[in-house]
Order: sequence, then C-alpha cells, then structure tokens
Amino acid sequence: MAKPKNAISPTRSENFPEWYQQVVRNADLAENSETRGCMVIKPWGFAIWEAIQRDLDARFKATGHENAYFPLLIPLSYLEKEAEHAEGFATECAVVTHHRLEAVKGDDGKTKMIPKGKLAEPYVIRPTSETIIGAAFSRWVESYRDLPLLINQWANVMRWEMRPRLFLRTAEFLWQEGHTAHETREEAITETKMIHQLYSDALRDLLAIPVIMGEKTEAERFPGAEMTFTIEAMVQDKKAIQAGTSHYLGQNFAKAQNITFVDRDNQEQHVHTTSWGVSTRLVGTLIMAHSDDDGLVLPPRIAPQQIVIIPVTPKPDSRDAIIDACHALAKRLREQNYGGEVLRVKVDDRDLGGGVKKWEWVKKGVPLRVEIGPRDMAERKVCLQRRDQPAHEKSFLDKELFLRDVVESLDAVHQSLLEKARTLREENISDCQDLATFEKHWSTEDPGWLLTPWSGTRAEEEDLSKKHQITVRCLPLDQQQEAESPCLLTGKPTKSRALWGRSY
Amino acid sequence: MAKPKNAISPTRSENFPEWYQQVVRNADLAENSETRGCMVIKPWGFAIWEAIQRDLDARFKATGHENAYFPLLIPLSYLEKEAEHAEGFATECAVVTHHRLEAVKGDDGKTKMIPKGKLAEPYVIRPTSETIIGAAFSRWVESYRDLPLLINQWANVMRWEMRPRLFLRTAEFLWQEGHTAHETREEAITETKMIHQLYSDALRDLLAIPVIMGEKTEAERFPGAEMTFTIEAMVQDKKAIQAGTSHYLGQNFAKAQNITFVDRDNQEQHVHTTSWGVSTRLVGTLIMAHSDDDGLVLPPRIAPQQIVIIPVTPKPDSRDAIIDACHALAKRLREQNYGGEVLRVKVDDRDLGGGVKKWEWVKKGVPLRVEIGPRDMAERKVCLQRRDQPAHEKSFLDKELFLRDVVESLDAVHQSLLEKARTLREENISDCQDLATFEKHWSTEDPGWLLTPWSGTRAEEEDLSKKHQITVRCLPLDQQQEAESPCLLTGKPTKSRALWGRSY
Repeated sequence: MAKPKNAISPTRSENFPEWYQQVVRNADLAENSETRGCMVIKPWGFAIWEAIQRDLDARFKATGHENAYFPLLIPLSYLEKEAEHAEGFATECAVVTHHRLEAVKGDDGKTKMIPKGKLAEPYVIRPTSETIIGAAFSRWVESYRDLPLLINQWANVMRWEMRPRLFLRTAEFLWQEGHTAHETREEAITETKMIHQLYSDALRDLLAIPVIMGEKTEAERFPGAEMTFTIEAMVQDKKAIQAGTSHYLGQNFAKAQNITFVDRDNQEQHVHTTSWGVSTRLVGTLIMAHSDDDGLVLPPRIAPQQIVIIPVTPKPDSRDAIIDACHALAKRLREQNYGGEVLRVKVDDRDLGGGVKKWEWVKKGVPLRVEIGPRDMAERKVCLQRRDQPAHEKSFLDKELFLRDVVESLDAVHQSLLEKARTLREENISDCQDLATFEKHWSTEDPGWLLTPWSGTRAEEEDLSKKHQITVRCLPLDQQQEAESPCLLTGKPTKSRALWGRSY
Repeated sequence: MAKPKNAISPTRSENFPEWYQQVVRNADLAENSETRGCMVIKPWGFAIWEAIQRDLDARFKATGHENAYFPLLIPLSYLEKEAEHAEGFATECAVVTHHRLEAVKGDDGKTKMIPKGKLAEPYVIRPTSETIIGAAFSRWVESYRDLPLLINQWANVMRWEMRPRLFLRTAEFLWQEGHTAHETREEAITETKMIHQLYSDALRDLLAIPVIMGEKTEAERFPGAEMTFTIEAMVQDKKAIQAGTSHYLGQNFAKAQNITFVDRDNQEQHVHTTSWGVSTRLVGTLIMAHSDDDGLVLPPRIAPQQIVIIPVTPKPDSRDAIIDACHALAKRLREQNYGGEVLRVKVDDRDLGGGVKKWEWVKKGVPLRVEIGPRDMAERKVCLQRRDQPAHEKSFLDKELFLRDVVESLDAVHQSLLEKARTLREENISDCQDLATFEKHWSTEDPGWLLTPWSGTRAEEEDLSKKHQITVRCLPLDQQQEAESPCLLTGKPTKSRALWGRSY
C-alpha cells in the first residue's frame, strides 16, 4: 500500500523511536527546552495530563487519601539516613549549593551572574520524597489513633537523566507520590496492593492500556523497599514501559527517620510505610501504545477534545447556516456527560481548507470527527469519522441518532483501542523453558516478552539481563505456578515465573 | 469579658503575628520544615488551596487561557538577558551547581554525600518564569495568526526569603503564573486589566475579601514591567497584603528574548507581553482577614468541609439511631450544590466528647456546625451554629427548613465576612493632605492607610517610605481625581492620589 501523503514520517516500522518524536511534534504535545533533559509540556499535552490527574485524584480521595505538599528541597543529611535509598538516587541528583547571584562585569563588558551565598548544608531537588515526608510523619504520628496516615502529593521531581526522551524519561517530570504509614505489616501490604490494583484499573479504564501486574525482583526493586509491585505496559514495538509502581517499604524508612507510635498495648513501635507513584510517563506510554502512522490516537476519556466538528462550506451562501448548525450540534453534545465530565467538543470554524483541518485533528488524535456540509444539513445527517479507524473511512448518520449514540461511539473507540493493545500483548508473550531458545530470541528484531520458570540469584539475573539488554519486568501475579518446573538457567525446580523483555 | 478557655492564645489584640501562627497551628493548616524557609502544607491547608485553584482555573479557561508546563530550572544566561529583571531577583535565587552526589566515608566512620558533577552553566530554580516562558514564546510565535498566545502555569517557585512566615512569605510557594503575548500595546493592556478585574472578583466571590484595585508606582513595580496592577487587601491589624498582581511588560521581555512576529502589514514586530499571578499567599491573606480569637474562620466557598454534623449521644441506647440520622442528613445535604460543587459535609462520629469535637471544628473554621441530639431527633430539629457568630450562639431549626435554606445559610456566612472586612477597611482608610498629620499617623499603634495627593519622585517616595516603614500600596484606580490638589510632600498640584500603608 502506498504511504498516505499526510502520514507521519518515518512510520512505525521504519523507525519507531523517531516516529514517536514526530507524533509528539505533530500533535503539539511537548518539546525539548534549553534546560538539559527538561521538556516544555504544551497545552495539548498538558490537558491530557490534567485529565489523568482529575481521574486519579478522585480515585485516591475515594480510598481515603488526602493531598498535601512538602518542600522541593531535601537537606543532604536526610538522604544520608537511608543508605540504600541514597545510593539509588545519588548519581542523578540536582544539587543546590548557593542562595543568591551577584552581577559581575566580565572582560567583554557584559554582565555575568555569579553564584554567591554558599549554603552550609547543600540541598538536593527531590528525586522522590520518602525522606522529607518521613520527617513530617515522624512529627505527626504519636499513637495508633493517628494511623493509618494516607497522604498523596502532586509534584514535580528531578532525576538527572543522561538519555532523556520526551515524557518517557525527562530530568524533571510531574507525578503523584502517595505516602502512607500503618500499624502493621499486613495493613501496609494491603494498601500497597490496593493501589497496585487501582493503577491497573485506571490504565484500563482511562488510557485503554491493559497492563501486566507483577512484583519486581530484588534487582529491580525501588531503593529501600521490601516489595515493589509494578504495572507493565507493552507498546507497539513490543518494548515494556514500567507505567506505575507501588512499594511496601517495611520499617526501613520508619527506622531511618524515627517514625514511631505507641501501639494498642502501649508499646512503642515503628510504623510500616508504603509509597507509590505514576507520572507524566503515562502520556508517553499511551502515545506508544495507541498511535498509528497518521499520528496521535487518544483514548476518549483523556482526550482534551473528544469530538471535533468541522463545517464543510463549499459555497459562501450556505456558509453561515452550516457554521450555526455545527455550533448548535456542539451545544447539544455538551449537554451530555462522558466519564462523569461534560463532553468536550470543539467546532473548528477557522477559515482554512477542510483537508488541512481534518489532518490537524487526525494528528492530534481526537477520537471522533464530525463533518457537516450543505447536503448533510439538508438531510439532517452528519458525516462521522473515528480516529481508531482508517482516516478515509466515513459513515453518514442521522443527526439525532448520532446524538443518541455518541457516548456509545466514544466507548467503542475506547474498547477497540483496548482490544488492539490486548491482542498485541497476547501475541507477543511466549512461554519459554529452554535457555538456548531464550538466548536466540533476543537477537530477533523487536522481540516480544518471554515468560520463564526462574529461580536464579540476583547476580545471575543481572548477568543474563546485561548480556541481552533485557530485564525481568516482573514476576506476574497471575502466572505463578502451583506445580514446579525447572528454572530456565539453573534447572532447579521452581514455582516462580519471570517475565523478561526490553524496556524504555 | 473573660477570655474563653478555648480561645487562641495570644489573642489578636495581644499579639497579632503570634496569634496568626497559632491559628495556623490549631487549624492544622501548615508547619515549618527543616528546609530553610519552606513549609509543609498539611491536608486541611492544601484543600483550601485546591478549592482556590479549581475556581481560578475555571475562570482562566473561560477567558481563553490554556495551561502548560515549563522547566523548573532556568539557565543563568536567560536571566542575564533582562538586566532589571535579573537584578530584581538575584539576591533570592537558589542556584543548582552540581548534578550528582558521591558517598564518602568521613573521619567519624559515617557516610557523607558530597556534591559532584559540576555543571558548566549553573541553573537557578525559577523565582518566576518570564525568561524561560519567553524563550518558548520566541519559538512558538511566527505570525500575527499565532497571537494572542494565552498561557497559564500552575507551579512551585522559589525565592530565598530571609524572614519567612507561613503562607505569607515562604522560600518555596505554589502559584499560578499567566503569560500572554499580543500584537499591540492596547491588546496587552486590555488583557492585564481584565485579569486584574478577574482577581478582584475572585477574591470577593471566593474568599470574601474586598480589595483595593490600583496601579503600583515605579518603585514598587515588578522588575522589568511597564505597568503593575495590584489587588491590596487590608487584614485585621490594618496591614496591607499584596494579594495578586497583573503586569504589562511592554516589549521589554520580547526584545530581550527576541519574540517577534510578522504583522498584518508583513512587517516584523516584537510582541507585547503580560504576566500575572496569585499564590498560596492567598491562604495567609484569608486567615488574617477573617479569623477570630477562637481560631480559623473560613469563607464557605473554599472550606474543605462546609458543614460538620456532630451527633450528640448522651445515652447508649439512642446512639446508633442518632448517628444514622446524622449520616442520613449528610446524604441529603450532598444532593445539593454550592458554588457549582457538591456540598462538602462531614459527619464527626468519632468516639470523643462533644465539646472536644465542637472546638476542633471551630478552630478549623468550618462555616456551619450542626448538632443532633436525642431531643432534636425526636422533634425533627437540628441545632445550627454559624462560625461567623460567637461560638455559644445556637439556633434550633426544623430539619426540613434547614435543608431547604442551607445554601442561603452558607451565603449568609459569606456575606457577613465580606461586610465585616469591608467595614474594617472603610473605617481605616483616611484622606490626608497634610504632611505633619501624615508623619504623626505612622507612630500610632496599628495605623490604618492614608490616601494622599502625590506627585513626588521615586526617590522622594522611597525616602518617605523608609522613614515610616510604609510603602505606597498603589494608586487606587477609583480614587484618581478630576481636579488637582497640592501634593502631600511637594505641594505641586496633582490629580494623582497614592494609598500608603504598612504591609506584610
């Protein structure tokens, strides 16, 4: 098939990573800035993040969490308290060492600003907030009556990434980080798992992304955690994206930061803490999961505009009437809700060619496009195009039927994206019990994931990972076996199964 | 009158600044952290900020603005481009100079983290984002067709404050900053003034704070601006708080950052820009404006809970029925809207004494408290207490009437707070034409504001300000005169009138 003239160049099969950059650029989602590794999130991209935020925030509040805000800067001494955690983030911390600037005239006559006011103790910009939130928790918790403490923060964080990629891996990113404290290990683990499930549900319902739920191995765990649960998404080049994690931190941070409480038996105890987060990385994940060679494809729930209405006005004398009809239709659509929010509808009445407008909205991923021309208006019809279907496909519908079924149409787009992603994933995860097959698999182009019996050590896992540029994405929760099979590497009988893949 | 035993100590008249700290502490709004000058915003305080955000965000979007997000870190070279701006912020910039840490064992055997990876060009943490957003605008704007560009950002910013005070002046604070670019001076000034009015309306409708709208003098202008419009609130010790500002930046930033466009006559021009912001300072402003010697008083629109229902359960046998009745009432209240949002109602069914609970909610500022006891239940009544009235005042209402009129009751609280603030302000602004009277005024305790004919120079204004620890808060828009009067200082005839006061 000939490449359509409006397609993204390169296509997915030609060069997936470059295709991704071009989808982002064509949809006007974000761009690189002159601050190393930091992006500017443009309005269309930010509106997607806002929709994700609104939904997640409601889910967190419905499960008893409250929002709060903690300082951006963390004293170095806080990091030093939890050694494993500090080590995990040390290589990527932005460090604040001075608190003012002084203007100095250079030899070239130009004014230069020089850092002055050296701080006695430097600060790092939070790469994550366990340490500074833990310090607050140790002030707030006295008795079991103060527990559980269920806090969430929406914030920016910074990790000095050496190989940044828009949305997926940026030095600064936006996220939410939940931090909770509990009386017992059991309660904290229940919280960790509840959030793990909440994330999985949200990705399915909101982003139309089916995820694999599993636990990380020791090698891949969050620095300082006892258990890390992850949701892993497969995107179209069959790489994995870790889309969210939920950690049971045991009493590690409580001990490092002295978060204690007097329990029901009047004994002093350390609390058990959890932390969990998702970030603007979700935007990158959904782009890679659903978009096509025409550009961005948005699941309806998070689309900044869910429906765009384009007046088709070949003749000046019917132009005003058609534009009015479009606005009247938009008004009626906005009387309807989708996912608990008013339908987001845009009338594109700019004085531009119809093709130019159509392709702009295709590339921006709007789920439903509606055109109304003179004939449609006369016949009380609309021309409907779905973003999950080829750009040339149209259906002509009675306007009242379209209005009646519009929520169903949006759901249909959502379902088709979800099903397509599910199919891709199912076709690209294979069982593998044999080391030779396993090793050969990773030299193929865009290899899928392999599920193997696994009882190797951390060192053995790391060796195998390095050799093939893969990682254990997780030990999938629904794939652990009743019966034992021989471990892929050691041959030792094991019930445990690991899922391996390449990742972003 | 004897001081009530549950009152805040000290009271407002005893020590206003310390009373403020205690109101914040008793309402559990925020606390200091170990990061110098930075606060932790606790859930009750953060929920107030979220309510302010929701309302303002809707107002910005309704006037055509879109949200976006720009990097936290600004390259030093950006600041150097606009000299006046750089100078204005230089003394309070947090500077990032390194991008990693290295663990080093100290002589004491303890691990220390040392900054490593020195950056070739340091960054400052944004004190405001004109420079980095200007850099983006210069990439985005090519033609008059790209204008106006109407962008808002919700973000954290950092200014290294030497005398921090919770909410009012903190090193890190949360805010929104609007940044817009326009074809002409007139359009940009119209935008600046529209936002000025939007802020004034929001403070009145949302926070029940009447503000004085005016223009700043050159001495008090935003560094780099041509005009700064301000909203000034008077709080209960008669000090002024600059609650929000809207700046017309002329072409200063456009020239420093090369933001040009091809105009309708095919000529290259610099855009005219504006910027405007309000911050978490609004929370401090509303506390100082409305709270009393019992603690926080919240205007209903931004109260995290608007109504608290307290079951009064003297006898075990009626306890469950009363608690059920309270939840049933809450459910019916939540079927109603206030200010476009579902009524926020809390049933406090904790196993604590009624007095303890009542005073907790008084100190947290909840607008309406409802008690239901055995007799009320039998008579289908509720006992209603309003936070804007003395804590001992009660009225017994038929439950159905209460439900019918609840929105009116909330409005009544809002109106009474607004009226009280208006009265305070009107009683404490005086006209003053005479220098001797003016100078004497500032030695009185908690002096009000003075409105004077003024045509002094910047130096004269600064001298007078320094001498009396006052500032020109603004040139009030509605107080500029048709006729000339002699300037307070110079005696020269002038139409201009300045408003002077002490400020936070």
